[in-house]
Amino acid sequence: MEQTVALILPDLIEALRTDPAAVAELTEEMHPADLAEACSATEDLGLQLIFVKALGVDDAVRLVEHLDERLRATIVHELAKTDIGRTARIVDNLAADERALLFRDLEEDTRTTLFARMEKKQAADVKRLLAYPEDTAGGLMTTDFVALDHEMTVAKAIEHIRRVAMDMETIYEAYVVDENQTLVGAISLRDLVTSPADVPVTKVMTANVISLRAEAVQEEVARVIAKYDLLALPVTDRGRRILGVITVDDAVDVIAEEAAEDVQKMGAVSPIQTPYLETPFWVFVKKRVGWLIALFLGELFTGTVMRYYVGEEAGGSVTATIAMVWYVPLIISSGGNAGSQSAALVIQALALGEVQFKQVLRVIAREFAIGVVLGIILGVVGIIRVSAFGNPIGMHLTMTVAVGILAVVTMGATVGAALPMVIKRIGLDPAVSSTPFIASFVDVVGLVVYFSVGHMFLHLS
Amino acid sequence: MEQTVALILPDLIEALRTDPAAVAELTEEMHPADLAEACSATEDLGLQLIFVKALGVDDAVRLVEHLDERLRATIVHELAKTDIGRTARIVDNLAADERALLFRDLEEDTRTTLFARMEKKQAADVKRLLAYPEDTAGGLMTTDFVALDHEMTVAKAIEHIRRVAMDMETIYEAYVVDENQTLVGAISLRDLVTSPADVPVTKVMTANVISLRAEAVQEEVARVIAKYDLLALPVTDRGRRILGVITVDDAVDVIAEEAAEDVQKMGAVSPIQTPYLETPFWVFVKKRVGWLIALFLGELFTGTVMRYYVGEEAGGSVTATIAMVWYVPLIISSGGNAGSQSAALVIQALALGEVQFKQVLRVIAREFAIGVVLGIILGVVGIIRVSAFGNPIGMHLTMTVAVGILAVVTMGATVGAALPMVIKRIGLDPAVSSTPFIASFVDVVGLVVYFSVGHMFLHLS
Repeated sequence: MEQTVALILPDLIEALRTDPAAVAELTEEMHPADLAEACSATEDLGLQLIFVKALGVDDAVRLVEHLDERLRATIVHELAKTDIGRTARIVDNLAADERALLFRDLEEDTRTTLFARMEKKQAADVKRLLAYPEDTAGGLMTTDFVALDHEMTVAKAIEHIRRVAMDMETIYEAYVVDENQTLVGAISLRDLVTSPADVPVTKVMTANVISLRAEAVQEEVARVIAKYDLLALPVTDRGRRILGVITVDDAVDVIAEEAAEDVQKMGAVSPIQTPYLETPFWVFVKKRVGWLIALFLGELFTGTVMRYYVGEEAGGSVTATIAMVWYVPLIISSGGNAGSQSAALVIQALALGEVQFKQVLRVIAREFAIGVVLGIILGVVGIIRVSAFGNPIGMHLTMTVAVGILAVVTMGATVGAALPMVIKRIGLDPAVSSTPFIASFVDVVGLVVYFSVGHMFLHLS
Repeated sequence: MEQTVALILPDLIEALRTDPAAVAELTEEMHPADLAEACSATEDLGLQLIFVKALGVDDAVRLVEHLDERLRATIVHELAKTDIGRTARIVDNLAADERALLFRDLEEDTRTTLFARMEKKQAADVKRLLAYPEDTAGGLMTTDFVALDHEMTVAKAIEHIRRVAMDMETIYEAYVVDENQTLVGAISLRDLVTSPADVPVTKVMTANVISLRAEAVQEEVARVIAKYDLLALPVTDRGRRILGVITVDDAVDVIAEEAAEDVQKMGAVSPIQTPYLETPFWVFVKKRVGWLIALFLGELFTGTVMRYYVGEEAGGSVTATIAMVWYVPLIISSGGNAGSQSAALVIQALALGEVQFKQVLRVIAREFAIGVVLGIILGVVGIIRVSAFGNPIGMHLTMTVAVGILAVVTMGATVGAALPMVIKRIGLDPAVSSTPFIASFVDVVGLVVYFSVGHMFLHLS
């Protein structure tokens, strides 16, 4: 059965604090993925280091392989400081693709110290893989794959696979190569075990192998693996020499990651890789403010349109209300956009289990603060606009629009974050229509807020 | 290498038209997934039937397994009419899980005719699987899995796997069961081939198997397979008796499907399974109108708010312009919502490769027509609202709002569909900020449209 990490977490933390020796025993039945989940669940770097040290090297390796990329880099960085020898042994034993991903996240000095203590072969392997961009086939592939000489028989091939099995990412697809390492065929272990022992592998292999070049982007990798239901996809160079293999589990991660990005993009947030609560405040502001300003500038034209059509009331003299009306579409859309962003981020965090309902206040406080910052920035742009626009009412109108934007954007960001969590809490799907629903809600409340602000500054009845 | 279906398509269609005998030869090198892609690419049911008939039963089976679910049902339905014997043989040889999915899409009469001609065992198997809801572990699992008796030795197990390999969905994970079919352990072929021949499988198996109950929802299935990097996930009943297995390739499909649904939900469209261009016009209307009306009703309150704050201009008597202003937030948000829906659908279709740029006019025409229908429906709701609301201007205002809604919703739907295709065409990512960007665009143009309509009906200057 699947482990429920939450159940053993208290005992684990207790053991880490008081009796690290007991940790190995306490966790010995656990799946590596659960070890990793428990490790990050302690939410305390100190305990996490004790955890990894308390495990045998092999268990430590499995745990590190399953950790979230950012936490993994931090832990390895710290471990390297205290016990470089053991850390190098752990790194040496990581799967080649995970090891390369790890090094992408390590700082230069940690890389150097590790390279100095790692096995030559592994160090060279990492350097070779780092040469490929992270989001390409070359950046995803592992070099731990089964290559069969084209002169082997089925029996020899099975014998070879038996020998190397333990070091391979997968042994279920093997690749037949000629003396120049050119990919000439693929054969599954299934076909090998069901074929007569003495025939040459070239007789039973598939000559027409589906493969990608190292430069292929990760979306293409995921598409091909999904389309052809592959367990593994060979990666070759221009000369069709085989460089490595990408396994289906990595494709699954890519597809999930792409999905998360799409949802964020729909909400006009530049893609964010790190878990919601681990992402720094200012990263969120940076990822969001660009789009908000772009959309805000677009909405500025609504003011021009409104003024063109609305303004000749009350015999030519423009009243405060009329002037406020010009900015209604701008104000409510700004609130809606900020709300969509918060919603997209929170929906994703909920889907990935990065936040639970018990953290609702923390999330709301965070989005409120982000909303204030974003609102001030847009408010300033608003002030420039109103002033430049020719302002028949004067300072009071400028203040009304600026404060209105601040208030509505803050409200939008807060509601956009709170609503999905509430919807999820009452057992509904937070993704369903959150964004437009929030926009509608923010439109209505936003108008009340805006005109109340106006009442404050312009003494509207 | 991956086949480029587009290249051989012309020859294939030619052969299907003139010389079906040549088809088998023309396609013999092709991967089943490409056979299926070529088959649906002909876009002509007549040719598609000739195609399936021209192939040997085994190739036909592989092709049918890879077809899109809806097309697959249509083709099998037609084949059953003309040659029930051969069709039954094809169905008998489908993978158990694909066969069950097929029957879910078949009409009652076709099911009955097929059951009558199928092998007893296969027919019973289908009926058993149909008992589970489609989106649960039971609905996803296959019954073609390797079960090992707990008294077998490693050698016996490998021997058994060799024998049954051809009929199994996967042989890389085998499941050890006791005399009551209770799941007692799991063992990978990797562990089997690397273990001494004479030890009992119970010595080398993992006793702590990750499994799910048949009632588990498909999201849970995908999550568990992704988290534990499983090639296959066993499905059990309450008594832990093993019922079937879900393979990773099916989990990949689920994850991709969930991603598509999330994007549609973000755009306030009820999830749609079928490819964009194959989805009937009225299905789109039905999937969209519900959300649009719900959001529209929400927005109606903006009118109340606007009227509360804006109305006392021009000395109490409400001018036509003021009355129109009340409905500005309602009008532009309706256009924005319709636009988000179209954008979400088109972005998804582009991501899945369901539409290309060359079809842009077809897509725009379609969304325009859908926009008109949705606009009329919302316009009617608008008329009721304006009339009920107390209308100081009279029929002309009612018409202005109704026609304004129709025009802006139609414009929103059209722009929402066109923009992502253009963005993609110029090499950018259509998902980035489409929805809010479209909303901003529609807000500006929508205001112009709305006030122009008002000018028409109310002779505004």
